[in-house]
Amino acid sequence: MRDVLTALMAEYALLIDEDRLEEWVELFDEGCDYRVVTRENVEQGLPNVLIWCDNKNMLRDRVESYRNVNLYNLHYDRHVLGPLRILGHDGPLWRFDVSYSLFQTTLEGESRLFSVGRYSVEARIAGETAWLEKVTVIADTGLIPSLLATPI
Amino acid sequence: MRDVLTALMAEYALLIDEDRLEEWVELFDEGCDYRVVTRENVEQGLPNVLIWCDNKNMLRDRVESYRNVNLYNLHYDRHVLGPLRILGHDGPLWRFDVSYSLFQTTLEGESRLFSVGRYSVEARIAGETAWLEKVTVIADTGLIPSLLATPI
Amino acid sequence: MRDVLTALMAEYALLIDEDRLEEWVELFDEGCDYRVVTRENVEQGLPNVLIWCDNKNMLRDRVESYRNVNLYNLHYDRHVLGPLRILGHDGPLWRFDVSYSLFQTTLEGESRLFSVGRYSVEARIAGETAWLEKVTVIADTGLIPSLLATPI
Repeated sequence: MRDVLTALMAEYALLIDEDRLEEWVELFDEGCDYRVVTRENVEQGLPNVLIWCDNKNMLRDRVESYRNVNLYNLHYDRHVLGPLRILGHDGPLWRFDVSYSLFQTTLEGESRLFSVGRYSVEARIAGETAWLEKVTVIADTGLIPSLLATPI
Repeated sequence: MRDVLTALMAEYALLIDEDRLEEWVELFDEGCDYRVVTRENVEQGLPNVLIWCDNKNMLRDRVESYRNVNLYNLHYDRHVLGPLRILGHDGPLWRFDVSYSLFQTTLEGESRLFSVGRYSVEARIAGETAWLEKVTVIADTGLIPSLLATPI
Repeated sequence: MRDVLTALMAEYALLIDEDRLEEWVELFDEGCDYRVVTRENVEQGLPNVLIWCDNKNMLRDRVESYRNVNLYNLHYDRHVLGPLRILGHDGPLWRFDVSYSLFQTTLEGESRLFSVGRYSVEARIAGETAWLEKVTVIADTGLIPSLLATPI
């Protein structure tokens, strides 16, 4: 299972980094849930959510809005993910955590740390393929929510 | 073997990052050896060791001291580990290296690079489980030794 | 295949970080191609290449030049690589991508982010071993080409 899930997350990260967001959406199942929260809010039990799409159509809409607002790409993203902690499964539905570091580079070529945190993921495996059912991005770094932002 | 050892190191990193240090200690064997050194000292052949616990009880004591000193968590840790270089094994005892990057985030949500370096590890495998026998953290980054510090 | 290719890239990164560049060269095949380009140039369709060795002897020469110029190591490198995206294969020749973060540490122990980007790789697998046929480093970060530079 580790190989299939690792491949899924490698694809997740590289599709965002290559600005292929429409293909990134296709990694998700129709009834998916994608949200971005801060670790601070999670640990204080606060309900704040920075981004929340509770199905694939919302995710598609978000990417479309992003495309309409951003005629030009303003930076490059680069995700470097750690190894998966596989927590268990309920039939074909697997739960796991992955730590991430996310760097941004300006068009002038200057790179900086943008965000670190953890993905808490549920994915459904069928044979050699897997789909994302639920991705919760728990960012250690405080983030400014924005329509302009690429997904994490 | 790669999967079992990778799972062990994913757990190692995430337990520290979640401040579950008592569970982190349980990844080690009773006769374990945990130490933190700087790369500079290693390359110059100097014997300086910043932290050294040569059995599991010392590791337990260290975590307990840390708990007594730090009533409140002052930052969030985030480890992002690279892939394992597996060096070989002597029966069930496997040796491997892993590079790490370690970021810290203040409670205000500002993240920065804290340390980079390498784990040199010996782990004992039994079936699908593995225990840490020896972990040497070789930090590229110069570090200030402190009772207050979380493990790396 | 994932394990063999992951082991290859772990070795690639750690050999550079340990300044064992002569052994790093031995990961490549005789007819190999190693080049470093910037993402900006790739996306603009520009032909600029910062480093280009189109066979193993050129790679050997480059390392030798580096050794002659640098009597002392001026910094420590540390690569942290993400999981592989395996794209496919043509017989024993496999293509994959890997994101990297590269940190440098001065001899005084200060670490900083040096470069992020992606390796686009072709490797030939024979049994449990693999050789690098083509490595293109596509750096998000703008880089100053220099004879003094270690490989990425």
